[in-house]
Amino acid sequence: MKKYVAEMIGTMVLVLMGCGSAVIAGAEIGFLGIAFAFGLSVVAMAYAIGGISGCHINPAITLGVFLTGRMSGKDAGMYMLFQVIGAFIGSAILYVISSGMGLEGTGANMYGEGNMVPAFVAELVFTFIFILVVLGSTSANAPAGFAGLAIGLSLVLIHIVCIPVTGTSVNPARSIAPAIFEGGNALSQLWLFIIAPFLGAILAAGVWKYFECQKCK
Amino acid sequence: MKKYVAEMIGTMVLVLMGCGSAVIAGAEIGFLGIAFAFGLSVVAMAYAIGGISGCHINPAITLGVFLTGRMSGKDAGMYMLFQVIGAFIGSAILYVISSGMGLEGTGANMYGEGNMVPAFVAELVFTFIFILVVLGSTSANAPAGFAGLAIGLSLVLIHIVCIPVTGTSVNPARSIAPAIFEGGNALSQLWLFIIAPFLGAILAAGVWKYFECQKCK
Amino acid sequence: MKKYVAEMIGTMVLVLMGCGSAVIAGAEIGFLGIAFAFGLSVVAMAYAIGGISGCHINPAITLGVFLTGRMSGKDAGMYMLFQVIGAFIGSAILYVISSGMGLEGTGANMYGEGNMVPAFVAELVFTFIFILVVLGSTSANAPAGFAGLAIGLSLVLIHIVCIPVTGTSVNPARSIAPAIFEGGNALSQLWLFIIAPFLGAILAAGVWKYFECQKCK
Amino acid sequence: MKKYVAEMIGTMVLVLMGCGSAVIAGAEIGFLGIAFAFGLSVVAMAYAIGGISGCHINPAITLGVFLTGRMSGKDAGMYMLFQVIGAFIGSAILYVISSGMGLEGTGANMYGEGNMVPAFVAELVFTFIFILVVLGSTSANAPAGFAGLAIGLSLVLIHIVCIPVTGTSVNPARSIAPAIFEGGNALSQLWLFIIAPFLGAILAAGVWKYFECQKCK
Repeated sequence: MKKYVAEMIGTMVLVLMGCGSAVIAGAEIGFLGIAFAFGLSVVAMAYAIGGISGCHINPAITLGVFLTGRMSGKDAGMYMLFQVIGAFIGSAILYVISSGMGLEGTGANMYGEGNMVPAFVAELVFTFIFILVVLGSTSANAPAGFAGLAIGLSLVLIHIVCIPVTGTSVNPARSIAPAIFEGGNALSQLWLFIIAPFLGAILAAGVWKYFECQKCK
Repeated sequence: MKKYVAEMIGTMVLVLMGCGSAVIAGAEIGFLGIAFAFGLSVVAMAYAIGGISGCHINPAITLGVFLTGRMSGKDAGMYMLFQVIGAFIGSAILYVISSGMGLEGTGANMYGEGNMVPAFVAELVFTFIFILVVLGSTSANAPAGFAGLAIGLSLVLIHIVCIPVTGTSVNPARSIAPAIFEGGNALSQLWLFIIAPFLGAILAAGVWKYFECQKCK
Repeated sequence: MKKYVAEMIGTMVLVLMGCGSAVIAGAEIGFLGIAFAFGLSVVAMAYAIGGISGCHINPAITLGVFLTGRMSGKDAGMYMLFQVIGAFIGSAILYVISSGMGLEGTGANMYGEGNMVPAFVAELVFTFIFILVVLGSTSANAPAGFAGLAIGLSLVLIHIVCIPVTGTSVNPARSIAPAIFEGGNALSQLWLFIIAPFLGAILAAGVWKYFECQKCK
Repeated sequence: MKKYVAEMIGTMVLVLMGCGSAVIAGAEIGFLGIAFAFGLSVVAMAYAIGGISGCHINPAITLGVFLTGRMSGKDAGMYMLFQVIGAFIGSAILYVISSGMGLEGTGANMYGEGNMVPAFVAELVFTFIFILVVLGSTSANAPAGFAGLAIGLSLVLIHIVCIPVTGTSVNPARSIAPAIFEGGNALSQLWLFIIAPFLGAILAAGVWKYFECQKCK
């Protein structure tokens, strides 16, 4: 149970701080500041709860870890459930702070009119890159302890490039909660931010299995 | 005595550099630059004096560490005392530099008219997150050596989100000294920047005790 | 074969994310954001595929590593080939996303009219610095695990200084693919972004051999 | 001899990249970008040449290390000599690049009319902080390998705060070469950027000796 609670808290932090940076401080800090907020949320949580749950705080990561045989199906399902619950708690706390200050918005993911194809390609490819960093930096060959920094800084990187395209999801839990709070386009486009990241995770798991395959040259 | 002196110097650096970045360079570096100044002050001091005192330089951290049974009550009290003294020295040095350049302000924490509830929620929740990173990244399960980076980068993160709300305290010592120098609203609102961070620290210590509890599943 | 595929994927990521940051988000994130995108691409890939191929993702690095006797000539050639292939894939994916959004450009390297000498000096000296960091941080004397951070942050540094001069190459593969996509000046100036980085790598390998030389004092 | 050459190259890189960021890219990257350029130069060189010379690349660091008994007087003198030579080479390479692009300035340190006292206090106190991080993060008690990051990020921090005051020296070698190239106020104020940093280093060495003193409580 502890590890599920840890996933819930970690995803709460990611959504509260990442989306919160956009809603509360976006005008001052710009896209680069928002990118650091999302990535440093992962750095913070990786070293805080990494020893409890491994700090996935992202259903696409959990899928990639499950597909490479590092966790059970039951645990994978429970992780995803608690990640989504945590994302809702994060959105709710953000709402208390931002609405109290007269601010609007929840940092939901969206793409512009007619940009569905670039949005889908971006979310799929960027999640593939992200999960590859997760699987590689936590493998036995990688130097111990650095995974939290590598994964968090990768998320900074992905946000730097992708905010103008979709706001950047690469994480279905991070998309679901704000979309339900916000409705409208955010809700009708939500499918993309679930399917594309999961496809990217499947692709990354496949590539990683090839890298780890003993028989392959 | 050495460790108390180390806490005094460390908190002096945090207040001088963090608040100093806002007062001296804020117009050029923006909120993102100020956020890095506060967080990198912690990174710098963590590796400088971590081996002497553990580098709390924040009474909320000292409370969290005390509540999880890692230090004595006497040491906790002395740490807090020397942190506040160090904060005053930092504010005084900043005053010498900034007033000599014709600048005003001390970087005191404040919230806008009618924003008391969001300010209280933000300071409580963000301190909870911060102390959770402190307790997690310094626990036996966490990779050795990375705590200074994780804690410092978490403080960057919290400032990115929270500067528009309160200027960001999550540290009573960092609030007390500038408020007394500045007076006015900074002084009449000071209670919030003591109570909310301490409540956040108590909450984090409780969650961490659950994570470390042997009997809990 | 695995290591060649890893080099291909890594260089794809570097070109897609680095050049992508300029094309998709450049107006919002500025030169500092672009600098972080290139450098964090290296951090991400170093910890993802470092255990597979060493993560060169740059023919100038491969040349420097080859000249210091750490890899065979055949491997060096294959690394360079797959790096260039990966760069083309990165440029192609970027084209799908950016053209779908109505954006132009591929992030090709170029220097202004009459700036050939500063461009050549900059690319040679900055590649020398970059390869010196690569060779030093991966040597037996350097602390284990930090090379990915040191090399990636060095690339952030080099971009901070060099973007106004040439856009920053220090990597022939990163220059070749966008130049061929873009044509014009980017193509006619391409020779400089191959020769100057290779000369910088040769110089760095020479200096490093002196540092490692047992007989030299 | 190798270690002296390493100090020369390292200081060359610090001056070329740090001052170069201000001269070549300052208008685009702002003070925050310049701060990262100086700090990341130290990160880069720390992991590149740290195993050869310890990577002081700053006479104030060399003085602090000498005063805490970690190096001989002869080595300290030679280190300082080669650091100044390296700074001149860095300034010369920067001149070739910047003058070729029609740019002026060398990034010399200066303080405004009537700001001598704040400048002196700032350079003394900030060098004290910097050298404390150097001595602490390289001591036996500190986690191995992190010193390069801690020291480099401290230099980012110090530049964030201090650029509006003096441009930030905390390093006599970094001040001497540009001042001689630039002349005028930069030259007539040079004494401050030698004396204040050295006093800060002496103070830091004294505090560190107290922390390491076996008899002191």
